[in-house]
Amino acid sequence: MDLSQAARELKALAPRLSALSTELKNAALHKIAQTLRERRSEIEEANQRDLAEASSELGAPILSRLKFQGDKITQAAEGVEAVARLADPVGKVLSARELDQGLLLKQVTCPLGVIAMIFESRPDALVQIASLALKSGNGIILKGGKEARHSNRLLADLVHDAGVAAGVPPGWLFLMETREDVEVLLGLTHDVDLIIPRGSNAFVQHVMRHTTIPVLGHADGICHVYVDRTVDIEQALPVIVDAKTQYVAVCNATETLLVHAEAAPLLLPRLKHLMDEKKVTLKGCERTREWLPEIESATEEDWATEYLDYVLSIKVVDSLQQAIDHINTWGSHHTDAILTRSLATAETFMNLVDSADVFWNCSTRFADGFRFGLGAEVGVGTGKIHARGPVGLEGLVIYKWKLYGSGQIVADYVGPQARAFTHRDVPPETSWGGRF
Amino acid sequence: MDLSQAARELKALAPRLSALSTELKNAALHKIAQTLRERRSEIEEANQRDLAEASSELGAPILSRLKFQGDKITQAAEGVEAVARLADPVGKVLSARELDQGLLLKQVTCPLGVIAMIFESRPDALVQIASLALKSGNGIILKGGKEARHSNRLLADLVHDAGVAAGVPPGWLFLMETREDVEVLLGLTHDVDLIIPRGSNAFVQHVMRHTTIPVLGHADGICHVYVDRTVDIEQALPVIVDAKTQYVAVCNATETLLVHAEAAPLLLPRLKHLMDEKKVTLKGCERTREWLPEIESATEEDWATEYLDYVLSIKVVDSLQQAIDHINTWGSHHTDAILTRSLATAETFMNLVDSADVFWNCSTRFADGFRFGLGAEVGVGTGKIHARGPVGLEGLVIYKWKLYGSGQIVADYVGPQARAFTHRDVPPETSWGGRF
Repeated sequence: MDLSQAARELKALAPRLSALSTELKNAALHKIAQTLRERRSEIEEANQRDLAEASSELGAPILSRLKFQGDKITQAAEGVEAVARLADPVGKVLSARELDQGLLLKQVTCPLGVIAMIFESRPDALVQIASLALKSGNGIILKGGKEARHSNRLLADLVHDAGVAAGVPPGWLFLMETREDVEVLLGLTHDVDLIIPRGSNAFVQHVMRHTTIPVLGHADGICHVYVDRTVDIEQALPVIVDAKTQYVAVCNATETLLVHAEAAPLLLPRLKHLMDEKKVTLKGCERTREWLPEIESATEEDWATEYLDYVLSIKVVDSLQQAIDHINTWGSHHTDAILTRSLATAETFMNLVDSADVFWNCSTRFADGFRFGLGAEVGVGTGKIHARGPVGLEGLVIYKWKLYGSGQIVADYVGPQARAFTHRDVPPETSWGGRF
Repeated sequence: MDLSQAARELKALAPRLSALSTELKNAALHKIAQTLRERRSEIEEANQRDLAEASSELGAPILSRLKFQGDKITQAAEGVEAVARLADPVGKVLSARELDQGLLLKQVTCPLGVIAMIFESRPDALVQIASLALKSGNGIILKGGKEARHSNRLLADLVHDAGVAAGVPPGWLFLMETREDVEVLLGLTHDVDLIIPRGSNAFVQHVMRHTTIPVLGHADGICHVYVDRTVDIEQALPVIVDAKTQYVAVCNATETLLVHAEAAPLLLPRLKHLMDEKKVTLKGCERTREWLPEIESATEEDWATEYLDYVLSIKVVDSLQQAIDHINTWGSHHTDAILTRSLATAETFMNLVDSADVFWNCSTRFADGFRFGLGAEVGVGTGKIHARGPVGLEGLVIYKWKLYGSGQIVADYVGPQARAFTHRDVPPETSWGGRF
């Protein structure tokens, strides 16, 4: 089946998926987990074919992500079971209001409809996102990297069929297999409600620029730590080291350090020593190099670069406002931290920095759905609409307005004899008490 | 100043607008209301120029919308004062969670940043949306119809200057004046966070198709009433008449009536009589015309048409599912109602119809921010992201994640000796109690 047709059919199926009971969805998730365990050797074999075909071309980090064997399969099954334990995000009453006697308005969560996820060479991502889509009552279109095609093909079939065996309507999951399909996908404005792209900055930006379908994602993660004038240096140093080096290849690692001029003389030499131990290359503005003359110069290009590597750029600033302006100009609205003894200064920073995550006296690396306690991470968004920062299951739902009446007409509520609305908020669990 | 530059400056100003106190914003709103009252004669004069220049070309409904004199100015001032009385949507704590001792996560509402609103020939819309943007801490770009240019120019200056007199930073409001600017606007992805277009279907669709900036709006409003098998006909008839005729020129007026075959024989002849009284033209499918042979045939084109007029298309269906499929296929995901004695049937309809508003036993005309008790209506959205249906002030805000720490690093929470997160939800008003 081609993608356009599959998406159209999935969109038509979406209302039925939205109405699946929590029990059925959880049973389907357990069935998926069970299937992953039972069919492990087949999965390992398919994955082995991908690894064999890929090994000559790809680097070690990609091969490591591509590998889906043994414990990784067990962990994926456990991940699916964890999704089953999450609260059902569908059918939550967000607000309830009596508009008039016998006229009850409820704002109730419901699935988005059809979600498309494009991910890289991690077969575990396929299992995870399919589980999250199922739990939230959405149809799901998946596209993995071609280097994982044998693994993805088998996993998509196993996950789909396990869901169907538990009562999910056939067709709830569709695997796209060609790169050309991505361009087709970007045009499916009527049938796809959200695209979640994961991959290189260039790829995510390409998606964002070439579709009018909403996109949940982030292109780059140029995160900052700002060291304020009144910093506690003993506390600050380990935080900076952690923010830069705890895992350099991820979007919430810090790329640029901003240092207040009054903190620079004490901080910079000690930081240099610690960063040397971690083999981090420092690049600094001219004022940084007054204290660290041995390091390379940083240019404007550095402020705009996500190194994803053992490199840190440093700039000395004269004020909190200069730090905020630098971050709002050069950052990517992802995660930025201030290190200061002053809560008032921290609040100003956190209010004026236009980023999804604004932190005080802790590492930017905490920006993560698991660490935030969201239960599951669907993605990380740096847009301003719908959901921002680490996004849990709530990012895959929206709401509808249900109005329960007993024959009310608008004509009675207008004109000189107009009946007045009561507009009385009522508890979410209120059920309609009309006259039938 | 040209639009691109103005938007860039407004985006740079946005963090300051986001941090304005509730008191200052409300004082500015009262100053705007006062200015409208004090400068009424100037406003009337500018509006008179628009009316004089326009009268030869435009129809009566447009002229009526364009007219901004006397009571309409008083009402606009009262509307601004009503916005001042609304709760501040900024700074609300949506959730608070202790991640560990001395590590507190808060999800706090904040403005989107810069909003662009394109509206038709209603000078009162300029005043209203500027007030809503100000209250929610957003910068605002406005574009009105050229037929209202004298009114809009004066109002934009008065509103802007009144805000500035109360302490809002200059530049918080920008008025676009050329049609070419609209095309420029659609490309300002870095500086505009949300576009709210009001106008013809074709115009709104043009905006939605030609920008990757999020759009809050709805192109058409093809709303349905479905009359179920078990309907209470005495209750249903006035609801159908109201849904069609209470105000035909609006998006929540009903355009298509779906009737269960078992309800048709009793309902249709009586409905015809009532619709004749209201001078509504009926168009029906072949099965409808078995009962009403004198009416015109309806074709597929009718199912896809928003008449905005005294015309109603009618289709007989054999089941609830057929009605749901028709609505999901031909509707515009705006507002659809079911008339039935059965709450269970109504719940099925409300769950499976993929629309922003799903109503039971009441008129589609209730779909409105005022009637819903939202306090203010920013727009009506039929998308699936962010906000849906009638959207109040909450549609102009998003949230950021504030994490208050005391030196925590991620390295302590990973590996075999990993410290565990507590992930304990705490009351929203919890303040950080770290070790300083």
